[in-house]
Amino acid sequence: MIIQKTENSRISTFDPNNFSFGGTFSDHMIICEYEDGKWGEVKLVPYGPLLFTPAMMGVNYGQACFEGMKAYKDKDGQVFLFRPEKNFERINKSANRLAMPSVTEEIFLEGLKALIDIDREWVPQGEGNSLYIRPLIFATEEALKARISNKYMFAIVATPAKMYYTEPVSVKISDHYSRAASGGVGSAKAAGNYAASFYPTQLAMEEGYDQIIWTDDATHEYFEESGTMNVFVRINDTIYTPPTSEKILDGVTRDSFIQLANRRGFDVKVEPIKVKDVVEAQKNGTLKEVWGVGTAVVTTVFQALGYNGEKLELPRLSDEESFAVILKNDLVNLQNNLSEDPFGWRVLVDHALETV
Amino acid sequence: MIIQKTENSRISTFDPNNFSFGGTFSDHMIICEYEDGKWGEVKLVPYGPLLFTPAMMGVNYGQACFEGMKAYKDKDGQVFLFRPEKNFERINKSANRLAMPSVTEEIFLEGLKALIDIDREWVPQGEGNSLYIRPLIFATEEALKARISNKYMFAIVATPAKMYYTEPVSVKISDHYSRAASGGVGSAKAAGNYAASFYPTQLAMEEGYDQIIWTDDATHEYFEESGTMNVFVRINDTIYTPPTSEKILDGVTRDSFIQLANRRGFDVKVEPIKVKDVVEAQKNGTLKEVWGVGTAVVTTVFQALGYNGEKLELPRLSDEESFAVILKNDLVNLQNNLSEDPFGWRVLVDHALETV
Repeated sequence: MIIQKTENSRISTFDPNNFSFGGTFSDHMIICEYEDGKWGEVKLVPYGPLLFTPAMMGVNYGQACFEGMKAYKDKDGQVFLFRPEKNFERINKSANRLAMPSVTEEIFLEGLKALIDIDREWVPQGEGNSLYIRPLIFATEEALKARISNKYMFAIVATPAKMYYTEPVSVKISDHYSRAASGGVGSAKAAGNYAASFYPTQLAMEEGYDQIIWTDDATHEYFEESGTMNVFVRINDTIYTPPTSEKILDGVTRDSFIQLANRRGFDVKVEPIKVKDVVEAQKNGTLKEVWGVGTAVVTTVFQALGYNGEKLELPRLSDEESFAVILKNDLVNLQNNLSEDPFGWRVLVDHALETV
Repeated sequence: MIIQKTENSRISTFDPNNFSFGGTFSDHMIICEYEDGKWGEVKLVPYGPLLFTPAMMGVNYGQACFEGMKAYKDKDGQVFLFRPEKNFERINKSANRLAMPSVTEEIFLEGLKALIDIDREWVPQGEGNSLYIRPLIFATEEALKARISNKYMFAIVATPAKMYYTEPVSVKISDHYSRAASGGVGSAKAAGNYAASFYPTQLAMEEGYDQIIWTDDATHEYFEESGTMNVFVRINDTIYTPPTSEKILDGVTRDSFIQLANRRGFDVKVEPIKVKDVVEAQKNGTLKEVWGVGTAVVTTVFQALGYNGEKLELPRLSDEESFAVILKNDLVNLQNNLSEDPFGWRVLVDHALETV
């Protein structure tokens, strides 16, 4: 690894009590370039701009995929990653579906640990705070032919994050727009999946909703995801979530919620969720909770579902009654080293670069 | 418009008889930046790299769409565009579907004409030669939040192009993968649509095919597009092409083919094409031709269709018998000012910048 430390650290300008999520970047970034069929050396360099022309294939043909993950700091200042090997596996699945080269464990995990080590001061302490980390791969060849690129960049950038404090939100069950085709790229964290979701979401907002629950594109009879999150439904005391598929992202938070629910002895069923079953449960009072999970927000609880022009209200549960809140707290406590870690999910970031 | 002419023209290094399509760029490019809710001034500048970080939203969330068009030079050295207003309309439809700002006619068409005027020496003369032009819009804000970007760039870059001389190719009728969801972005020239097609195409190539005929994702019973082209089928003497929809691109070459076919008095039906009708026509000998059309290649004629593990051969027609070849020649002659233009499709590029 080539390490070029910044000579102009911006850490003194960073106020952990007053920053905007997503637009403040830590001092360094990881970059690694792919050319002639192989990845070059990993470079840890100051965060900043690189040179690309508008003919860059990444923005012309969308060969680009990413991961979202976080680093957490405990009360003693120790920094932890959460299940980073899951993101490593998934970025390569996404890359494969987009005909892009895989990255090696050395490039991804060693690059990641080096970046978080050197920028550990950028990980804010305290409840709900974290450093949001964005590994990505994108096509960098300059060429105007719709074909697989010969050049790529792997990069990791990071931005301090706070808990989104989210009021329960209203979501519209999609009856026309969809995020994934059968035989498409829905299960990949492909850049294009996100752009495709913005306009339908904007329309839903104009109707008074905050997000969309995506349904299958052919019939709109089955739940798929919610916004950029996996979705959970609780009817009576049973939790349902759709199985992952080529249309549904294999979310790390989703998988963690399932395991945490099992540990608590909750009844969890991974099976297709029919819109009409959820609507019926709302009508007969057995629908207790619907929520979304993802790395950025952890959990968003829904207060109403829009369906067929109707706003179906959900009960307001106390934190003690809510499985969503109980599981969220279990997860956040584990991530922040406030509880035991029987799963071995926390990965301590060693101090390795201090003498560099 | 701000005009900054290059001081290092590369035109003397350009050999119109020996260049690679897609990787050689003309001397200049158009750029225009969007910020604070409005587009800035259009700039004509030397082609070259700009500064972007890996947090650029265009490569993270795929807000990026483009157009493909060409400029042609006739024997007298006059340079023409072909139906540029169609590309102007379509880039804004694509932008709208991706929640991106529209460009104005002044930005798109005046920028385009200025670029082709100043780089007119880069338009190669001779049969099948052209300058391929790539207008695009992409998100440039640096932010790691999956939301609509606040900053964009509109750009136009150009690369000299030759006729792809294409042998008839074999195409696989897709029975699993698909390029578009109902309620998705298939009708937009969204960057992500192209990346999504590469892996399935690679698999089809491993089975001995050159391209894919995309079918509807729910049933795979209807033709949609072929590769990155619109698709035409001829059974007996009737030409069929699927209607445009939210899943099928409204191709300029497609529309031109339909109008040229009507002018010749060919029977053209714009209606859904069933895979089983095409297969049946092949079995009973009434399937005469299947071909794809698009700006880059104009026409690719298919020699065989892969379906259900079978390779269905198509007749080899002479140029005089082939509707695909007849219509292609009509179009190319019109584009290159070798025939009348009753449609008013050619747009002469004036000499406006010579004194700059």
